Amino acid sequence: MEKNEYIFGLRAVIEAIEAGKEFDKVLIKKDLSSDMADDLFRAAREKNVIVQRVPVEKINRITRKNHQGVLALLSPVSYHSLDTLLPSLYEQGSLPFIVMLDGITDVRNFGAIARTCECAGVDAIVIPERNSVSVNGDAIKTSAGALMHLPVCREKNILSAVKMLKESGCTIVGASEKGAVNYTTIDYTSPVAVVMGAEDKGISNDVLKMCDSFAAIPEFGNISSLNVSVAAGIMIYEVVRQRINSGLVVE
Amino acid sequence: MEKNEYIFGLRAVIEAIEAGKEFDKVLIKKDLSSDMADDLFRAAREKNVIVQRVPVEKINRITRKNHQGVLALLSPVSYHSLDTLLPSLYEQGSLPFIVMLDGITDVRNFGAIARTCECAGVDAIVIPERNSVSVNGDAIKTSAGALMHLPVCREKNILSAVKMLKESGCTIVGASEKGAVNYTTIDYTSPVAVVMGAEDKGISNDVLKMCDSFAAIPEFGNISSLNVSVAAGIMIYEVVRQRINSGLVVE
Repeated sequence: MEKNEYIFGLRAVIEAIEAGKEFDKVLIKKDLSSDMADDLFRAAREKNVIVQRVPVEKINRITRKNHQGVLALLSPVSYHSLDTLLPSLYEQGSLPFIVMLDGITDVRNFGAIARTCECAGVDAIVIPERNSVSVNGDAIKTSAGALMHLPVCREKNILSAVKMLKESGCTIVGASEKGAVNYTTIDYTSPVAVVMGAEDKGISNDVLKMCDSFAAIPEFGNISSLNVSVAAGIMIYEVVRQRINSGLVVE
Repeated sequence: MEKNEYIFGLRAVIEAIEAGKEFDKVLIKKDLSSDMADDLFRAAREKNVIVQRVPVEKINRITRKNHQGVLALLSPVSYHSLDTLLPSLYEQGSLPFIVMLDGITDVRNFGAIARTCECAGVDAIVIPERNSVSVNGDAIKTSAGALMHLPVCREKNILSAVKMLKESGCTIVGASEKGAVNYTTIDYTSPVAVVMGAEDKGISNDVLKMCDSFAAIPEFGNISSLNVSVAAGIMIYEVVRQRINSGLVVE
């Protein structure tokens, strides 16, 4: 179970949503329906809170207290929003370096990538709201605390996020075998977003279509492919290498 | 518990040792002493088998059968020996690329590094016999099977192993902060052994003294340092990058 803190009960959760608390997500038992449940859905929609219908057993596994079929997992961090973060990066005069995780679901890989990002001076991680890890206790632990410091943007629509990155001047580099060139032949000395795909399926097709280039890490073995957190480390530090060599980053 | 296969009982283990079976190690209960126990110690010494005195409870946790205080964990792979492997690499005309793990004890990190090594075309991993991971079931699983294919040399004396690598013409590059230069400024286009140290203590002092250069991966974060398996991936693929750029390795 995630080590998040949580609150439960219909009224308590509605009030927390309205008070602007940040949530990982709100779990609601499948067949819950009442006027107050409608209030909850309305409040969640207004505040962009993720609500998931689940079997009541899932909630029971978290608490046996009188949860009335409603339990909200609090987010241990405040998420950032790409549309305020990006302009502020440019204003600070930094050369944006974004890492987007498109469908990574293994929390250990997420934590490991976040740890690398924090070390490498990545400006922010972008994750989608759905079919993705989120910043929970396990992720923070695996990240060695990096997730408490590194901005994470959780975006409702990952395609809009990619578009926003492109429009702000970022080159979108997808880590993918499809039509790929050696990752070291790509230029990372301008604003860049590196996209890493899911462990099994890689980058989603819609996002792939919007990439400016496809980067492949050469492999010579017979058996296995690189672990995604190691592959991310290799890609991220190639960006760092090029930027140091160009005098854009000072060691 | 390691998922190794094992055999137990004084006579069975002695016979397995004499038959040349490969072991991860032999566990003997602390206070065992008899003529036959002496035979076992003699046989183990002759065949270079690692014997560990342990509380009987440790053996009981593995099996409740009549083990007589003796249990041998079979090795799931055959270890290689650096002094036969190194000459064969040169004979094959390859440019040796060795990764030495000096005191890595986390089996997941070991497996992850092995997976990267297999992908990158590393020729062999060198580990010390003591205070180190060994190739057990968990390591093989984390390596995504890479450890079934990649030669692993388990060396009794890690200093002799470093000496042997140096004498055969390998540059010894230690991943270390001590007196280090940026890892990308080191030349990896000649035979090379990259040494990664323990997660906590880094490379041991004796091995540090024998390194030709010290490589540091630049870090810009506030909090965490890189995970050793990610750091290894970054170092290893810098070797690959340089060798591809010099035409020494063909993609």
